[in-house]
Amino acid sequence: MSTDSGSRIVVIGGVACGPKAAARAGRRDPNAKITIIERGPYVSYAGCGLPYFVGGTVPELNGLMTTTYGAVRDAAYFSAVKAVDLKLRTEALSIDRQAKTVRVRNLEDDREEDIPYDKLVVATGAEAWSPPIQGLDLDRVLSLHVPPDAVRMRELVEGGEVDHAVIIGAGRTGLETAEALFGQAVDVTIVELADQMLPTTLDADMACLLASLLPKDAAAIRTGEKVLRLEGADGVVTKVVTDKGEIECDMVLMAVGVRPNVGLAKAAGLEIGATGAIAVDDHCRTSDPDVYAGGDCAECLHRLTGKKVFAPLGSTANRHGRVIGDNLTGGDEVFPGVVGTGILKVLGINVAGTGLTETAARKEGYDVIACIAPSQDHAHYYPGAKSFVPKLVADAKTGKLLGGQFVGRGDVAKRADVLATAITFGATLRDVANLDLAYAPPFSTAIDALATAANVARNKQAGIARSISPADLRAIMDRGEPVVVLDVRERREVEKHPIGNGDAISIPLSELRKRVTELPVDKPVFCLCPRAVRAYEASVILRDAGLTQTRFVEGGMHLWSCAGDEIEG
Amino acid sequence: MSTDSGSRIVVIGGVACGPKAAARAGRRDPNAKITIIERGPYVSYAGCGLPYFVGGTVPELNGLMTTTYGAVRDAAYFSAVKAVDLKLRTEALSIDRQAKTVRVRNLEDDREEDIPYDKLVVATGAEAWSPPIQGLDLDRVLSLHVPPDAVRMRELVEGGEVDHAVIIGAGRTGLETAEALFGQAVDVTIVELADQMLPTTLDADMACLLASLLPKDAAAIRTGEKVLRLEGADGVVTKVVTDKGEIECDMVLMAVGVRPNVGLAKAAGLEIGATGAIAVDDHCRTSDPDVYAGGDCAECLHRLTGKKVFAPLGSTANRHGRVIGDNLTGGDEVFPGVVGTGILKVLGINVAGTGLTETAARKEGYDVIACIAPSQDHAHYYPGAKSFVPKLVADAKTGKLLGGQFVGRGDVAKRADVLATAITFGATLRDVANLDLAYAPPFSTAIDALATAANVARNKQAGIARSISPADLRAIMDRGEPVVVLDVRERREVEKHPIGNGDAISIPLSELRKRVTELPVDKPVFCLCPRAVRAYEASVILRDAGLTQTRFVEGGMHLWSCAGDEIEG
Repeated sequence: MSTDSGSRIVVIGGVACGPKAAARAGRRDPNAKITIIERGPYVSYAGCGLPYFVGGTVPELNGLMTTTYGAVRDAAYFSAVKAVDLKLRTEALSIDRQAKTVRVRNLEDDREEDIPYDKLVVATGAEAWSPPIQGLDLDRVLSLHVPPDAVRMRELVEGGEVDHAVIIGAGRTGLETAEALFGQAVDVTIVELADQMLPTTLDADMACLLASLLPKDAAAIRTGEKVLRLEGADGVVTKVVTDKGEIECDMVLMAVGVRPNVGLAKAAGLEIGATGAIAVDDHCRTSDPDVYAGGDCAECLHRLTGKKVFAPLGSTANRHGRVIGDNLTGGDEVFPGVVGTGILKVLGINVAGTGLTETAARKEGYDVIACIAPSQDHAHYYPGAKSFVPKLVADAKTGKLLGGQFVGRGDVAKRADVLATAITFGATLRDVANLDLAYAPPFSTAIDALATAANVARNKQAGIARSISPADLRAIMDRGEPVVVLDVRERREVEKHPIGNGDAISIPLSELRKRVTELPVDKPVFCLCPRAVRAYEASVILRDAGLTQTRFVEGGMHLWSCAGDEIEG
Repeated sequence: MSTDSGSRIVVIGGVACGPKAAARAGRRDPNAKITIIERGPYVSYAGCGLPYFVGGTVPELNGLMTTTYGAVRDAAYFSAVKAVDLKLRTEALSIDRQAKTVRVRNLEDDREEDIPYDKLVVATGAEAWSPPIQGLDLDRVLSLHVPPDAVRMRELVEGGEVDHAVIIGAGRTGLETAEALFGQAVDVTIVELADQMLPTTLDADMACLLASLLPKDAAAIRTGEKVLRLEGADGVVTKVVTDKGEIECDMVLMAVGVRPNVGLAKAAGLEIGATGAIAVDDHCRTSDPDVYAGGDCAECLHRLTGKKVFAPLGSTANRHGRVIGDNLTGGDEVFPGVVGTGILKVLGINVAGTGLTETAARKEGYDVIACIAPSQDHAHYYPGAKSFVPKLVADAKTGKLLGGQFVGRGDVAKRADVLATAITFGATLRDVANLDLAYAPPFSTAIDALATAANVARNKQAGIARSISPADLRAIMDRGEPVVVLDVRERREVEKHPIGNGDAISIPLSELRKRVTELPVDKPVFCLCPRAVRAYEASVILRDAGLTQTRFVEGGMHLWSCAGDEIEG
């Protein structure tokens, strides 16, 4: 069909993977004729930035589509810089794998044509998914997946038309948008079907910690609540009806999740994986060797479990794009998979996770050792040190790391990235404890929080550190079993922030060795302090004094407070 | 000598490794009788925090000796909490390995005694080292290694007695103290014998970048200058005399380096390594199986080279301490070594390094591929994004990472830690490019700077990215060879910040494909832009247009400017 000598590469989808694959292929093969087909009016935009446009942190939508030097990535840019033919507002209707053509329709003038390819890239992305409930067609029921969604939401909010928004789904999009709307003086209620926020990223204990850290006035979070239907008046949404009540509102964000856009691939007979995303091999090749797929429409190998997963992320899509760009142009590049790393900021709290949660690891059949060890992100005497809580999950048999979660105001990103790297290489707790990480007071503690957490986990394994989870202790107390909660903080700390229920005995760690006899020998003693460092020390002192039922409350008051007990102040 | 059943553990040295070993041993073995012998009046202090006390960032010296909850780590604390007998102001005079005793002198009353041990830990640390020059005995010639040094320096500075300080040595202590003194309104001159700052952490190109980023008014930095002697008046230092001139001053900080305190170990016949530090095996055991050594007085295995190194760091000392604490009490714990990670903040610029520098790697015999790829620490459209420049060093044959350096205002700590982790596990450039790092706009770019740098290095290896270093281009131009420097920035950028020498041709990247013919075909064209992203793209366009001698200037204007050319504004 073409008399040109260069290979014809057609890319369907212009957000992340597609443009990356196109640009990379173009740099490697100057003779390639490259076309990108994109249904929408925008290309190569930062989809992850949409909540920040809604909140006004990113003032102009263009901000999400510009290079670092301010050039807007539009058709002219792709033509001039990348020599790529970018067809915007053009929908791919079907793929004819025999004829090797893509049928497209220009959405401006409705004209159709067949575009021939030698190699095809399917990068059709994902789309917001909603459960089949009544009222989704009401006005002001939005999703936040493409730029027009964000434009509409910001218009409503800045137009003063939204007093109260309901966000359905406490995943990343829901929480980031909650922050954006709070910043715009909108009251927010989040409704989540699961019993916790971020159920795929966090275990229940860490989600509970997150809930306790979020500013109380910023958003009402209702977990374990099922949305039944949306109701409206004059075609505009006015109410969310759940199995527990009704919530008046004037805007609803559906943020339940996304699903891969595989219609085109499926119709073309390309193999779809069990995850529902397009099946690809380790070269990002589909079941047709001339067709590649990447980004949110394709499945990924999980490097820990060896299973295929649907893990849509802009960062992964970009890596796919590069691998595809290489393989389109004679390369032999492998995409080794993901370990499930994610991060978000919500209302001043940073949340990150990598690998498997404890729940997921147990489901995978692992015998798990987990540990929670609150810490600070740099030396406490250097200004600006902030707290955060890491949770590590490892295989109890081998000590091999399976995952980590991080919640707090402190720098969680660094630890998540280090752990993601360690997990990639099959590191054990011992390996992490001995990493040669960068230490100076403005950046870290002499023993970094990650190493401390790994050591606590090892101490637990070795039986030196004997802990109880706040939830387990709470359950024992709720059953009315006799226990002693021993608050080992210093007097001035106890005076400033007494433990709410008044049941705790207070003996400062510094006096404990001398005052051990004040404790009953017939009840288990559970030692408590803010970060569990002193409580651990106290539990060792009591163990040595013969109080063998002693344990420390893991996660300290950071976690104890969200397990139900109030710490005042 | 003792009738107690518990093992007698004696620890010489009370700063980092010693107390850690003692505390760990005590938690593992409640019957152990543990004694720490410390010459000075302080124990378990954060030596790395001393410059921040000098600068007033840490208001009280106690701040460096308190736990996170405000308890001062003194003898009472060690006794009450750790059940450790801490003997301050007690000097270890000699070790009798036959009798298994340590001869000590109480520096308060000069009384001597023999302390028996079953197991001994030598954690005698390091001391500031000075070259043998005249005038070291003058008043106000200080080092900054122990708390009294810092107290004295701060007294002088806050007493208004220091207008101009000279810091001899542009290593970590020198640079951190320069920041501290600048903050105290003291004029600072740094004199460094080597041709660059931080010669063991940075290559010359990165040190040049650092020099260009430091605020011009904060410190005069004189590299490649040898101090010949110090001169004084009335016993007080007034002048530093170098091979290039004289510098008037009223205080001198000797910050040339430290050397291990091995006198005691040597006299006791313990093996000293080629590094000058105490030789230890992978269990931190010395040549005497009942004697352990750790912290700044002991040598470490470098995990990359397999060689022993002297790498004194508080973070390493703490890891040593834990390993020793285990092995003292029946454990079988290995210290696997270091990869040479370090970090510091100097005058608002963050500097980190891990693994080998390019220079060191070449000395080790590696065929090296290196790459410099300026980046930003998070999405440019999210507020607060800051620049930094990573340099990666890898084995050209295998792609195995050998080291990395990071300089800039941005978050270098995260990347240094990820790279240190990757190096520990033998990662290649390809591995780093495919790491599943945490991405959200406030924390990272969709493709993290580390992955970008790894990909640039791979592109260089593959011949796709053809670059020239600023230094090499400068040399070519200095020889008067005909070249074209092509500035590919957009017009508004060029107008705002013209390149100083006026020789560059300006064709914006967006116009380059159409204007290729404006370039001479007979001269090599060197493409330049701020971060080398566009310049790389431009070099590909010119290559495809037949200008085969084209290269891009690696490191972009970030590095070009410090190679001698001024960029205005």
